[in-house]
Amino acid sequence: MTVTKQMKLGAFLPPPGHHVAAWRHPHAVPDGGVNLAYYVELAKMAERGKFDLMFLSDGAGVRHTYKEAEDLSRWGRVTHFEPITLLSALAAATKHLGLTATASTSYNEPFNIARKFASLDYLSDGRAGWNVVTSATDIEAKNFGLDKQMDHTLRYQRAREFMKVTTGLWDSWEDDAFIYDKTNGRNFDPQKMHVLNHSGEFFKVRGPLNVPRPIQGYPVIVQAGASADGQDFAAQWGEVIFTAAQTLEEAQKFYRRIKQQLAKYGRAPDDVKVMPGIFPVVSRTLEEAKAKYQALQDLVIPEIGLALLSGHLGEDIIDVSKFPLDEPLPDMSQTSGSTSRQKLIIDKAKREGLTVRQLYLSIVGGRGHCVVIGTPETVADLLENWFLNEGADGFNIMPPVLPDGLNDFVDMVIPELQHRGLFRKEYEGKTLRENLGLKRPAFGDAKQRILKE
Amino acid sequence: MTVTKQMKLGAFLPPPGHHVAAWRHPHAVPDGGVNLAYYVELAKMAERGKFDLMFLSDGAGVRHTYKEAEDLSRWGRVTHFEPITLLSALAAATKHLGLTATASTSYNEPFNIARKFASLDYLSDGRAGWNVVTSATDIEAKNFGLDKQMDHTLRYQRAREFMKVTTGLWDSWEDDAFIYDKTNGRNFDPQKMHVLNHSGEFFKVRGPLNVPRPIQGYPVIVQAGASADGQDFAAQWGEVIFTAAQTLEEAQKFYRRIKQQLAKYGRAPDDVKVMPGIFPVVSRTLEEAKAKYQALQDLVIPEIGLALLSGHLGEDIIDVSKFPLDEPLPDMSQTSGSTSRQKLIIDKAKREGLTVRQLYLSIVGGRGHCVVIGTPETVADLLENWFLNEGADGFNIMPPVLPDGLNDFVDMVIPELQHRGLFRKEYEGKTLRENLGLKRPAFGDAKQRILKE
Repeated sequence: MTVTKQMKLGAFLPPPGHHVAAWRHPHAVPDGGVNLAYYVELAKMAERGKFDLMFLSDGAGVRHTYKEAEDLSRWGRVTHFEPITLLSALAAATKHLGLTATASTSYNEPFNIARKFASLDYLSDGRAGWNVVTSATDIEAKNFGLDKQMDHTLRYQRAREFMKVTTGLWDSWEDDAFIYDKTNGRNFDPQKMHVLNHSGEFFKVRGPLNVPRPIQGYPVIVQAGASADGQDFAAQWGEVIFTAAQTLEEAQKFYRRIKQQLAKYGRAPDDVKVMPGIFPVVSRTLEEAKAKYQALQDLVIPEIGLALLSGHLGEDIIDVSKFPLDEPLPDMSQTSGSTSRQKLIIDKAKREGLTVRQLYLSIVGGRGHCVVIGTPETVADLLENWFLNEGADGFNIMPPVLPDGLNDFVDMVIPELQHRGLFRKEYEGKTLRENLGLKRPAFGDAKQRILKE
Repeated sequence: MTVTKQMKLGAFLPPPGHHVAAWRHPHAVPDGGVNLAYYVELAKMAERGKFDLMFLSDGAGVRHTYKEAEDLSRWGRVTHFEPITLLSALAAATKHLGLTATASTSYNEPFNIARKFASLDYLSDGRAGWNVVTSATDIEAKNFGLDKQMDHTLRYQRAREFMKVTTGLWDSWEDDAFIYDKTNGRNFDPQKMHVLNHSGEFFKVRGPLNVPRPIQGYPVIVQAGASADGQDFAAQWGEVIFTAAQTLEEAQKFYRRIKQQLAKYGRAPDDVKVMPGIFPVVSRTLEEAKAKYQALQDLVIPEIGLALLSGHLGEDIIDVSKFPLDEPLPDMSQTSGSTSRQKLIIDKAKREGLTVRQLYLSIVGGRGHCVVIGTPETVADLLENWFLNEGADGFNIMPPVLPDGLNDFVDMVIPELQHRGLFRKEYEGKTLRENLGLKRPAFGDAKQRILKE
């Protein structure tokens, strides 16, 4: 089969892996979260696999829900590098890999964020990406002078103005502003400097930025908001959209909706790459893959499994920790106030007659993302199916344990995808944009999108 | 001569050098400010010279005073990397060099700053330093929602509370809190987590930090405030103090005063390293050194020289651009409102009969720091004299042009200092603290200093 279009791949790399029990795995690096050598190894592995980018999620604080230190102490991933500093270090250790960090519009100043991502773009020779989040926990708010977070609508209003300011600051200088004319003593062309003079509801920022226009024009903007506000924001600003889907149908629904929404902001379907998360457990045989997964499931601490299940069901509705672990979940179908996601889980437990333990074990792996357990061929089959049928432009790969899970994917699945003509054998471009097939925004491009708000 | 005490050295590395005309020098790298390869070369050069640290100043905006883009276009150093991202990248490219970045307490949130420096400390295996500034221009304030900066006292009040929060966050976890006990499913010892719960005049921050306690306990705190507030702040928090002095007498006065002030906060004289800035122009012969300096002086653009002179004299007092360049500065000794620094310059012009051009040329090099033009021996003589006579614990070296000026110092002055037993031949320690001879603050150390406020 000949395919000209190729999928895009992100490596989503939280230490020490995505499975909730990953940190207890024998191969998990205990202090991976603050170990540069470990991350250099991961980044080089992703580059060996020709991944478009690596992705780091982030929270402005310890984000696990806990009452006492005792509860928190049983979670993995409590501490880790701040992602922009880590990716700056990895810029010096890699050549091709896109470097995508999460930063919050709720707990930063736009001048600082515009500078940092412009700086990362120069450090990496055009490989920076910014995952724009508004942050969604009170835990983070409490580290920034608030008792609870701003409400959802307000967070998105601030995020929109934040984008206006950051893109405006990235347009402080035209691409060819700096002429460095030593002879005539002229550092830049004065006509090509633009002072922003922004004054809005949330921010007042003069400019200009003290970094030239980024190599990529703007860093690649990544977005993952699933709400209506989030999707509209993604349609305006997103260039890579991370999403979660359990089935092709779900993926298609999201994919088609997002692509349609782009027109509102004068954008074409190809201006955005939709990349659902995939939690792959891969081995040469299905039995081995299943055993690999089971080994992780066996490491799940009941208290943590229950905490995750309570979180998914909404703690205000029911505290599952009261029920016996190995008996079926009591019938809660009459519980009022359930969201569709809560209902989905409760219905599943009832339909399949799951015990409480079985129920939490069914969600601790992918946590809403598609879990695929199999051989390189069956994993590739799933990715191919979604990719060729309007379910995805690519995928954000979520290895269960690091470095093993990434290594498995690079050694086994990538060659299979390459063999099928679905994935690159060499990087096509120099910048992240070039590899993703995204056009470089011209000077002032953001203004066009702002006018359509 | 046998000396057991050795001096400490910092390499202060703004692109493309400290001389105001450095950017016009034939060897200046035009886009050095955003060129990682250039900075890797500089950092490795400093490491070859066994420098304790490299230092990056910073402003949250373009800091040159200008009316029109036209004026600004004649300055060097308009754009450059954001320093924390740059130093993170250099952490991956160096092994011994301390990495010291400037960050403002006026335009950042303490949670973000605590995280970034803790992260840099892990990325560099214990080589992070933070130059704490309150920022001193309205130009920066305008990028952060203000029309003009907060007043001096308020900025220092905020800075003090900022230190309380950041050191408190660095003490979120005791040094041995993380036990990573996979078998028993215990990530950390719950007794060793400490939630800050700070609530003060400027900040409300819950904690804990999502990075473990820094390798150095706290990153090395650098300070350069010269005001009374600044010196008291330095006595409480500073571990490396950057300062400016023209003569040994001036240096001694500052040195002795700072060392005396430490007792107030229960600190010993050795807990602080005083490092005046030195602007060295070095060659094998004095004639060559003079010619090197003159070549730079010849590149000074009159408008920029006049702008610097006006800045030093205070623009409100007199606009020197009205006077003919090559005639003596008119007598301004009766001008009211002159500060001691303004008087110093006016007196000098009168005493030496300097023209306007000669006067601005006398200040464009070191800009208040000690300018030393000579052979490796005469430069070493000056450093030795200050070092052995309570003028300095070390120096912050300010190369006129980069990379040439740093290379000259490493190739010529460092061997001379080593030969005299005044400077290390190999790094003594692994961390910046160890090389500087600063003790590692124990858990909770900052609280002792806060209690003495």
